[in-house]
Amino acid sequence: MIRTHNAGSLRAADAGSTVTLAGWVARRRDHGGVIFVDLRDGSGVVQVVFREEDAHALRNEFCVKVVGEVTRRPAGNENPELPTGEVEVTAVELEVLSEAAPLPLPVDDQIEAGDDIRLRYRYLDLRRSGPANALRLRSRASQLARGVLHERDFLEIETPTLTRSTPEGARDFLVPVRLQPGSWYALPQSPQLFKQLLMVGGMERYYQIARCYRDEDFRADRQPEFTQLDIEMSFVTEDDVIDLGEAIVSALWKDLAGHEISQPIPRITWHDAMARYGSDKPDLRYGVELTELTEYLRGTEFRVFAGAIDAGGYVGAVVMPGGAAQSRKELDGWQDWAKARGARGLAYVVLDAETGEARGPVAKNLSAEHLGGLADAVGAKPGDAVFFAASATTREAQELLGAARVEIAKRSGLIDESAWAFCWVVDAPMFERTDDGGWTAVHHPFTSPNAEWVDRFEGAPDRALAYAYDIVCNGNEIGGGSIRIHRGDVQKRVFDLLGITPEEAQDKFGFLLEAFKYGAPPHGGIAFGWDRVCMLLAGADSIREVIAFPKTRGGFDPLTSAPTPITAQQRTEAGIDAKPKPAATAHTGTAGPAAPVADPV
Amino acid sequence: MIRTHNAGSLRAADAGSTVTLAGWVARRRDHGGVIFVDLRDGSGVVQVVFREEDAHALRNEFCVKVVGEVTRRPAGNENPELPTGEVEVTAVELEVLSEAAPLPLPVDDQIEAGDDIRLRYRYLDLRRSGPANALRLRSRASQLARGVLHERDFLEIETPTLTRSTPEGARDFLVPVRLQPGSWYALPQSPQLFKQLLMVGGMERYYQIARCYRDEDFRADRQPEFTQLDIEMSFVTEDDVIDLGEAIVSALWKDLAGHEISQPIPRITWHDAMARYGSDKPDLRYGVELTELTEYLRGTEFRVFAGAIDAGGYVGAVVMPGGAAQSRKELDGWQDWAKARGARGLAYVVLDAETGEARGPVAKNLSAEHLGGLADAVGAKPGDAVFFAASATTREAQELLGAARVEIAKRSGLIDESAWAFCWVVDAPMFERTDDGGWTAVHHPFTSPNAEWVDRFEGAPDRALAYAYDIVCNGNEIGGGSIRIHRGDVQKRVFDLLGITPEEAQDKFGFLLEAFKYGAPPHGGIAFGWDRVCMLLAGADSIREVIAFPKTRGGFDPLTSAPTPITAQQRTEAGIDAKPKPAATAHTGTAGPAAPVADPV
Repeated sequence: MIRTHNAGSLRAADAGSTVTLAGWVARRRDHGGVIFVDLRDGSGVVQVVFREEDAHALRNEFCVKVVGEVTRRPAGNENPELPTGEVEVTAVELEVLSEAAPLPLPVDDQIEAGDDIRLRYRYLDLRRSGPANALRLRSRASQLARGVLHERDFLEIETPTLTRSTPEGARDFLVPVRLQPGSWYALPQSPQLFKQLLMVGGMERYYQIARCYRDEDFRADRQPEFTQLDIEMSFVTEDDVIDLGEAIVSALWKDLAGHEISQPIPRITWHDAMARYGSDKPDLRYGVELTELTEYLRGTEFRVFAGAIDAGGYVGAVVMPGGAAQSRKELDGWQDWAKARGARGLAYVVLDAETGEARGPVAKNLSAEHLGGLADAVGAKPGDAVFFAASATTREAQELLGAARVEIAKRSGLIDESAWAFCWVVDAPMFERTDDGGWTAVHHPFTSPNAEWVDRFEGAPDRALAYAYDIVCNGNEIGGGSIRIHRGDVQKRVFDLLGITPEEAQDKFGFLLEAFKYGAPPHGGIAFGWDRVCMLLAGADSIREVIAFPKTRGGFDPLTSAPTPITAQQRTEAGIDAKPKPAATAHTGTAGPAAPVADPV
Repeated sequence: MIRTHNAGSLRAADAGSTVTLAGWVARRRDHGGVIFVDLRDGSGVVQVVFREEDAHALRNEFCVKVVGEVTRRPAGNENPELPTGEVEVTAVELEVLSEAAPLPLPVDDQIEAGDDIRLRYRYLDLRRSGPANALRLRSRASQLARGVLHERDFLEIETPTLTRSTPEGARDFLVPVRLQPGSWYALPQSPQLFKQLLMVGGMERYYQIARCYRDEDFRADRQPEFTQLDIEMSFVTEDDVIDLGEAIVSALWKDLAGHEISQPIPRITWHDAMARYGSDKPDLRYGVELTELTEYLRGTEFRVFAGAIDAGGYVGAVVMPGGAAQSRKELDGWQDWAKARGARGLAYVVLDAETGEARGPVAKNLSAEHLGGLADAVGAKPGDAVFFAASATTREAQELLGAARVEIAKRSGLIDESAWAFCWVVDAPMFERTDDGGWTAVHHPFTSPNAEWVDRFEGAPDRALAYAYDIVCNGNEIGGGSIRIHRGDVQKRVFDLLGITPEEAQDKFGFLLEAFKYGAPPHGGIAFGWDRVCMLLAGADSIREVIAFPKTRGGFDPLTSAPTPITAQQRTEAGIDAKPKPAATAHTGTAGPAAPVADPV
């Protein structure tokens, strides 16, 4: 090593030692004849003292090597905020390893910079302590998770990333194959298919920190490539997978957030989560639960509510504590908020802070009896506001109230930003209606119905429940998975319900179905959205902060300018415009285009 | 868990316990009223005893759950070759978890099967102990390497795989970008560029077990995607990287091959390796060194040798111990062997086993004096054969002799298959001549000249040496790397020598050069070919054996039938035929198409 010591490791006990340091000029201060330089390396910062004539050329971010003696700082000059603050290094030799041009992005923790400039000069951004620490945290998180998994005899197995296109699910990224012109690989949306095949192969316990690819329209904070901690186990029940998931998040949060997660993590059914929080990923750092009012308001003459109730739907409410104190403008703002979400508006009443009397647009539409009992029915106090939602579709109304609940917590400052609230959302529905009146799988068609429903899901597909589970942290879904179907008869019945004929099943899922013929074990798994997990642990507000070289929303990399046009020669060589030879690559019997949709993270 | 115990873990001490096992029927034997089943799970095999009427339906590879009592086997019936051989499990309950159709590939360690059927039914292949153990070994190898690296404060950092096309180096796999029609990502040939940027970013110690992609014509045992253990360090010398590399291979070979590598691993210069072994990846499990005869034979009238010597080239020889005993046909076979390699033939003499007299086609062309001293000059004994090569191009002749050396070792059985011989090949040349008389970089244009040459490589480019090093195991290059240039002035001189103008440099390497302006630290690294490392550790003869789902030579996956044609809709959506908007994605100033070629593994 060019250095003998790490700058950040020097302490009073090192006084008297001669050390060689190497790092960057973080700051310089001139003091008549003497120049003080904060020398930074990966371990931290130490103050180096130069004679002026030796160091006058040094500028910020020069990379230097310094030989010097560690001395205690003069009494009164210690810096208690710096781990090395009791000492300084008196330089006797200086070598500039490389110079730095004037910086387009100051390497300064105090200065905010725009995302574009940060990404374009990511190598300067990473010299700042925040971005560097985010990558350090991510490395540590992966190491901790691997520790938990290896302790439990999991095997790390790499699965292919040049694989087969899956017209189901999200869009695939495609790769032309020069050696088979006209044929294309797809980049995997997840290792789902391969991890299930590994279970059929008897590997029993698999994990991988896997790169995945989804060609989605870029919503906020999506990346075209992302990472998941992907896990699959054989001979397990839902409880086994959940226990493992808890062991992983407990290890992570204990080490990286100093937080002991109390176990078991509470489980809430999907239907309860929707009913109480209007969300399948409820933020449990605060209360503000929903109240269903369908029965309470039955018989109301208010058309909006009556219509929903008569249609077999749902009316409910959520209370904003102290919400009666909002200005007219603030209350109008809720209407805009609701419309921006696609709702027609957000009905409300406010309860007078002194009398408790209900006022507002909805109040005059409700009967005196309904108004009189309302506060008790929804658990509101004088001074609160009550927001309503009604719809023939229960889920639609619940989700509007759920979103209002989150917004109430933000506007009312109910969120304890230092808190961590975890839950499992379990017993998700198997099926939901398609627009044309059929059924589609909520997770994927290989998700197993639970024991209660496995023999009779056809009788009430809308109520059938799956062995499917998500883990939620502070309102973020950080992982999800399911127990898979491993029995051919159950699989066939699920396909029948979904309207998938045996021929279609063979065509779409052929090679997985083929594998399932040969003694497939019961199996299930989970995948954690690793970018999101690390983001939460880092206290960051975007997954970009925990990705070394992230892309902007359009999938553009400001550093390398990827993607780019290609040359005509590349295009020709890659066989992009070649016509495939019919059946040249076909695989008789078991070929099928579709991998199942991934564990939903 | 569905099971209470692992089948392979049961021992005599468990006798009397009731256990629940889950696994596969590995074999069944019927013995009048009783059926013995070998039940296999991930931990091993145990014998289960069923009453005939309970188990008559069981066939091979049924997946079953069994409840039973562990009992000691009757005296004389123990199987000492099985860890569980002292016990058996007397079944009281049997549940078939899933049935198995007749098997296309027998799950039997004794049966050889073709690659195509093994890959198509990889999930059955993986139930065999050999393939399963290869994946277990690979998982453990990754865990061991990570352990060494984390102990030394390395950070695991994930770099992008949707990145920028690099027309230099091998061909890129390309990915059309739907959101920027006409623009394409490239899959990385290695993380080279990004790991160097991380060093500029002050991350100091990076590693990643990284997926890499090269669109090459499939030579033997290549895969379109492969894995490397990729490492980069700042403030290091070549010795530091070599020390780390030794720590990694030592940990791997100790744990997985039971072999203590004696350290330091010998280092041999590139020129010595070529001179002594005719290879830059010499197999040191045996001797059979080359001898240069250029001076010894100077003045010969034999045209083939004289021509090479007069042209300033090379004549040399390699000895085949006992080679004089070869039949005429065997000796002729060497000519075919040499021609298959592109040589015109392989000159030789044989030394009579009794008299030591030199005979054979070349003998009559050499003077009595040259013949008389030959055995001493090349270290041959009576009964040996001496093979010659001569060329105006030293390297060409050395490589032919080097290949002959390997072939001699094979034909003469000189290879100790249980031995492990490691070496570092260091001091590789910086430059080699291009066909048009210019110079090209042997590694990549960012590789640093060594201290002896850094100030004067222009004076003798053909002799200038680089800080570049490869690690070789039993004749296989398993890793390689270099110290990189971090100084702008040195980089400019290298570009000048390579005939790269500043404008071209900016265009090709712009964003890396831009990064190097801001205080780049001295840095260097190494990459291990992870597939090959695991292959050697597993004692396998193909990297396919240590890849979960490998492809065949044409890049075809017999399991999923990837690659496939795509639909017209996919083609349109992906923007494959869109014309790029000129400069729509351009990045003013620092954009440049080329990442350096990767660490050469």
